[in-house]
Amino acid sequence: MGEPLTHSFRVRYGECDPQGIVFNAHYLAYFDVAITELWRDAFGSYQAMRDRGVDIVVAEARLAFLAPARFDDLLSLRIGVSRLGQTSLTTSHRVLRGGELVAEGELRHVFVSLPELEKIPIPDWIRAGLERYAI
Amino acid sequence: MGEPLTHSFRVRYGECDPQGIVFNAHYLAYFDVAITELWRDAFGSYQAMRDRGVDIVVAEARLAFLAPARFDDLLSLRIGVSRLGQTSLTTSHRVLRGGELVAEGELRHVFVSLPELEKIPIPDWIRAGLERYAI
Amino acid sequence: MGEPLTHSFRVRYGECDPQGIVFNAHYLAYFDVAITELWRDAFGSYQAMRDRGVDIVVAEARLAFLAPARFDDLLSLRIGVSRLGQTSLTTSHRVLRGGELVAEGELRHVFVSLPELEKIPIPDWIRAGLERYAI
Amino acid sequence: MGEPLTHSFRVRYGECDPQGIVFNAHYLAYFDVAITELWRDAFGSYQAMRDRGVDIVVAEARLAFLAPARFDDLLSLRIGVSRLGQTSLTTSHRVLRGGELVAEGELRHVFVSLPELEKIPIPDWIRAGLERYAI
Repeated sequence: MGEPLTHSFRVRYGECDPQGIVFNAHYLAYFDVAITELWRDAFGSYQAMRDRGVDIVVAEARLAFLAPARFDDLLSLRIGVSRLGQTSLTTSHRVLRGGELVAEGELRHVFVSLPELEKIPIPDWIRAGLERYAI
Repeated sequence: MGEPLTHSFRVRYGECDPQGIVFNAHYLAYFDVAITELWRDAFGSYQAMRDRGVDIVVAEARLAFLAPARFDDLLSLRIGVSRLGQTSLTTSHRVLRGGELVAEGELRHVFVSLPELEKIPIPDWIRAGLERYAI
Repeated sequence: MGEPLTHSFRVRYGECDPQGIVFNAHYLAYFDVAITELWRDAFGSYQAMRDRGVDIVVAEARLAFLAPARFDDLLSLRIGVSRLGQTSLTTSHRVLRGGELVAEGELRHVFVSLPELEKIPIPDWIRAGLERYAI
Repeated sequence: MGEPLTHSFRVRYGECDPQGIVFNAHYLAYFDVAITELWRDAFGSYQAMRDRGVDIVVAEARLAFLAPARFDDLLSLRIGVSRLGQTSLTTSHRVLRGGELVAEGELRHVFVSLPELEKIPIPDWIRAGLERYAI
């Protein structure tokens, strides 16, 4: 078993809507930032994977909104690997403000070859790199 | 049984990412546009509901990405009501390019009172208005 | 002399901020939509220009915010060509709600060759197509 | 004379467009982040000003795009106060990647009272706080 990675950031004013809270679509953008940081921690960068002819495309997403986040809130993104399949990766995402869970969800990405964008099995070196974050 | 509402729009350049396709977070923004258009068709406008002391907040979302959409694609949003519970509404969303399904998903919204933002049962007049879109 | 092109659209909920008004950055996105529609009207599409080996990159922008626009407002984008230089195009943008001017501004784009992205003189066929919108 | 404030951040994937570079509208969002950080440094937070019955609204913006920024670039926002008028503030913004200037521009904000949103002279305590960043 591994453990999740944490990345902190502040809510921007333009990400909040007339209810004064983060507009729901931005949580998918936050989850994507977590993917970028996971790749940086595991492989140096997302580009380092692309340089080796591999890319990922998002196939499915699920989100639950538990508490409103507001402008200038300091939030923590926690990302862990919840499933490593043959060709797809499921990541688990939690957005926290201090100890309070603001939102959580999952993304499923599929691995593809570059430049063909054809589905491929997860390369061994990527599998090994991601196992450290298994939860 | 009712039938879904359709709303058409074009993909904007700034909604597409370096893969040349619509960035995934924008699909939640598209689903929200569909909610706005459903409210317009059912009740005159979203504001008309708020003027009667009722609002909605999103609780859950689920999305599946089936085919890439690209800049300037003319897309159709189809929105139907898949469940009307005691206090929450589940809408079903399909994004189509011609006959091709690009993405689909569901949103669950909870009804709240204004200005308290406390959970309330779905008012009868809203229930009656939404039943026309039941799928 | 020519005349400007008009394109209408509705303000999306997620484009509005906690002040209840359109967040300023979205006006640049609106101006970009106007460019897309100008290209559609003048040349069939933006892609039609790219297919002939020509692209544009934005070099400068100026905006004045005159009145707040709000969620679900039906706005009109008016775009005209205010200057056709040797290698650059200046477009003039007005955002109207009915007869009221909400915002106005200018964009300056530079023409580049594909795939080199090197600055080029405006091709004659583009110059001819854009003169119809001179203001 | 004072000196500008610097704030660093990374370009997000969803902020880049099919040209592979940051979509122009996001620079206004970046400038807004700089305003938030300036307020934090000068007054504790933007909310601290609002708690004293003062708010700001953007009146004008100007931007020049000098070099493309790309996904995952580590950028520095430099913000200084270029003019403190009777009722309005002009800030000067520079976006740098290492020593390279990526974009620069200005914002002009007007001070308003809360909750009336009526134009007011810049309060003395705000003027004093902002003079430290004069350039």
